[in-house]
Amino acid sequence: MSKPFVVVGGDAAGLSAASKCKREEPDREVIVYEKSQWISFAHCGMPYYVKGEIDRLEEMLSLSPEEVAERGITLERHHEVVDVDPNEQVVTVRSDGETFEQPYGDLLIATGARARTAPVGGAEYESVYTMHSMDTAAEVRARVMSPDATTVEDNAFDGGYASVDVGDALAREPPKTVAIVGGGYVGIEMAEAFRAHDFETHLYQRSDTLVPPFGAAVSEQVKETLEANGVTVHLNTTVESLEGESDVEAVVTADGRQSVDLVLLGIGIEPNTELVAETAIEYGESGAIAIDEYGRSSLPKVYAAGDCAEKHHTVTGEPEWVPLGLTANRAGRAIGQTVAGEPEKVGKIAGTAVLKAFELECGRTGIVDHEKAIAAGFDPVSETITAGSRSGYYPGAAETTVTLVADRQSGRLLGGTIVGEDRAAVRINQVATALEAGLTVSEFEQLDLGYAPPFSPVWDPTLVAAKVLRGQLATDE
Amino acid sequence: MSKPFVVVGGDAAGLSAASKCKREEPDREVIVYEKSQWISFAHCGMPYYVKGEIDRLEEMLSLSPEEVAERGITLERHHEVVDVDPNEQVVTVRSDGETFEQPYGDLLIATGARARTAPVGGAEYESVYTMHSMDTAAEVRARVMSPDATTVEDNAFDGGYASVDVGDALAREPPKTVAIVGGGYVGIEMAEAFRAHDFETHLYQRSDTLVPPFGAAVSEQVKETLEANGVTVHLNTTVESLEGESDVEAVVTADGRQSVDLVLLGIGIEPNTELVAETAIEYGESGAIAIDEYGRSSLPKVYAAGDCAEKHHTVTGEPEWVPLGLTANRAGRAIGQTVAGEPEKVGKIAGTAVLKAFELECGRTGIVDHEKAIAAGFDPVSETITAGSRSGYYPGAAETTVTLVADRQSGRLLGGTIVGEDRAAVRINQVATALEAGLTVSEFEQLDLGYAPPFSPVWDPTLVAAKVLRGQLATDE
Repeated sequence: MSKPFVVVGGDAAGLSAASKCKREEPDREVIVYEKSQWISFAHCGMPYYVKGEIDRLEEMLSLSPEEVAERGITLERHHEVVDVDPNEQVVTVRSDGETFEQPYGDLLIATGARARTAPVGGAEYESVYTMHSMDTAAEVRARVMSPDATTVEDNAFDGGYASVDVGDALAREPPKTVAIVGGGYVGIEMAEAFRAHDFETHLYQRSDTLVPPFGAAVSEQVKETLEANGVTVHLNTTVESLEGESDVEAVVTADGRQSVDLVLLGIGIEPNTELVAETAIEYGESGAIAIDEYGRSSLPKVYAAGDCAEKHHTVTGEPEWVPLGLTANRAGRAIGQTVAGEPEKVGKIAGTAVLKAFELECGRTGIVDHEKAIAAGFDPVSETITAGSRSGYYPGAAETTVTLVADRQSGRLLGGTIVGEDRAAVRINQVATALEAGLTVSEFEQLDLGYAPPFSPVWDPTLVAAKVLRGQLATDE
Repeated sequence: MSKPFVVVGGDAAGLSAASKCKREEPDREVIVYEKSQWISFAHCGMPYYVKGEIDRLEEMLSLSPEEVAERGITLERHHEVVDVDPNEQVVTVRSDGETFEQPYGDLLIATGARARTAPVGGAEYESVYTMHSMDTAAEVRARVMSPDATTVEDNAFDGGYASVDVGDALAREPPKTVAIVGGGYVGIEMAEAFRAHDFETHLYQRSDTLVPPFGAAVSEQVKETLEANGVTVHLNTTVESLEGESDVEAVVTADGRQSVDLVLLGIGIEPNTELVAETAIEYGESGAIAIDEYGRSSLPKVYAAGDCAEKHHTVTGEPEWVPLGLTANRAGRAIGQTVAGEPEKVGKIAGTAVLKAFELECGRTGIVDHEKAIAAGFDPVSETITAGSRSGYYPGAAETTVTLVADRQSGRLLGGTIVGEDRAAVRINQVATALEAGLTVSEFEQLDLGYAPPFSPVWDPTLVAAKVLRGQLATDE
């Protein structure tokens, strides 16, 4: 009998791996250690919970501890793995002030990532939040509700969770003015959430671009949409510090001091790799754990998956750190199958992402940034077009802006972005599919895509972009 | 100087070809003959015009005669080409009772298709319509409006068109009961149009499947949706004849006689190939004109494109007749470039199509029918799954049903369908892209597609289908 498959971290990657391994090899002991009480929760749902679009915290849990137990997995919550000894194949686990050793046959590091707070000074004040745990989501939700609201009191759970006490947060008056530091995914989504509660909302972004991975064309429209929805957007504005007594009271920038009652930091996340810091494990340039195509780290029998690990990029083949949900789930599942004896590759990442910014739908995939393309050895050329989302005569058509990036020499498609209000986001999937297949711009232009007036013009906006980009490539010949 | 490029037919394929040729070779004489007054109109918009979602007939014209003239194209409307002499490279043109001969250097047959009326007996009665011309669309729109409606009086046009007189049709009381014969695209779309006017609507379909190219899973949901919207659907019911005096009065089936005031025939279209019937031109098995990859017919210097011609299928490589808008436009454009001296392939067809059935969005691509797959030399296997369109906790998620078909031996994806109420239709494009690239089910399953709660669950429904289908393929190994 093999020694147990031990998983550190009970979220997407960890539980996907545990579940798959147990299904494929039912006699194998599978143990999951999770340091908090929460498992398998939807990070991506939190802004919508704060917004009020999702009623109960519990809805964001996709798997309960009891369901995990029913799968035959040993799930130990409030158990923190504090040391890995790859020579002895043993982890040290701490719980309730005690520690013990647990041998493993295979080990998966799925410790995820955490929200950054540095380098913003004053992040330790009260009423300064990051959006990266269930407890914080519950607290922020309570803070944004009026003290007489009843919905957030309902934080008791079925399935083995302790209820979350948000009484203190709920008792406070909601903020009048809030600041969001950072214009990435979380910042944009939280702006929508705060405006739904009618707070005066300031969003600060250090650079001149919102959601930088989506490029300039999307940034521009996201900015317009935020402003149209009452968000004050401060581009090129570094938050120098937060000020206050015990509670935060102001945001300080080169432009001056803005009084605020609550601050949301959305300045990025970083991989949780402390656990293996003392080992000889190899990291990638990103600082996340380096893995091979099966998710194996440089240590024998030690795998890594999810937001703490790198993955290989669809277009460049090079390792990259792109912490997103689908690839975490997929990698976990593949590793579960591999440790059960049937090796399965963890798959690549194209960095495909979609984002809702109020009514705007945004998508991106592959390599969008020219500098990144050059660094990867390509000679990038791109075109941005705007076309209707439906036949012009059909009501509801919305302008849809598409950017496609290709390599000038080979004509190969490298990446793309899309933005618009009518079914724009899911259209990025056809570009992502083309990247996986290595299609050239000419091949993409020849795609037979669906056309009907309610859904698309004769030439889908992505085909229009391909046509214009191919013209550009042909001119260069 | 080359002899003129002559185009027969002033719709999508014809005008795309003429425009492209003129742009690439401005000195070349380009002549387009169109037998009606209408050019470049949106067939696909007609049901929505009858429904009332589009206000004016004119909105469905994408290019006016004056705009065509501005491009330097000689456009002759009310000119019917009645003969082709491929040896002399001359066409015979009839206009206003006179005929004349026009020599050509290159000739494009873009005569389109026409709505079938046979084998339904009684199709010659009044108030029996097919939906395949601007004049009929105008008349049916007038018929469905109350006599005191004013919107349809507005059928005068800018850009060189004679107005359409629908006074007689408008003067009549709208029908109370209508019958649609045929449950294909037009039948489904017209059912939505008629129900918008609150008519009692009967839809007759000979087989047990609605929109057969979309397969059984889509048919089932379309039927439910039609019925939920008040359409009486008669499957497995052949309309034996129509009865009446001068006006149609009843539909006769094996089940009996249904009184009706108006009948819409949507029993398919057939290619207009009479013009070349006397020549040695080759036809495909479909009865449409056979072409090579550049759109060349078997006659020298004679091209064919659009609904009168076949095209090669993306998956099988075999010629097929799939009359749809995008491929007609694309083929015309390619032929225009080819005759201008820079050969361009017309592209393939995957038969990708999207359809709105009330609030239901349907899509299909590639080979869905197992018999067709077997005939093409494949060993088909398919799976149908239903999954949410968004994260379960996010409001607005709709059940989305996906069918994927693959070849058992190679694992290659052959086709797919999708149906659901939330952004389902455009998702067929990611499957169509995979077909063009020849991806296997395993490769498709590895796609990095976009995930965010408002737009998609972690696993896009098409990925769920791929996962299940791959499981099926693996079991067979």
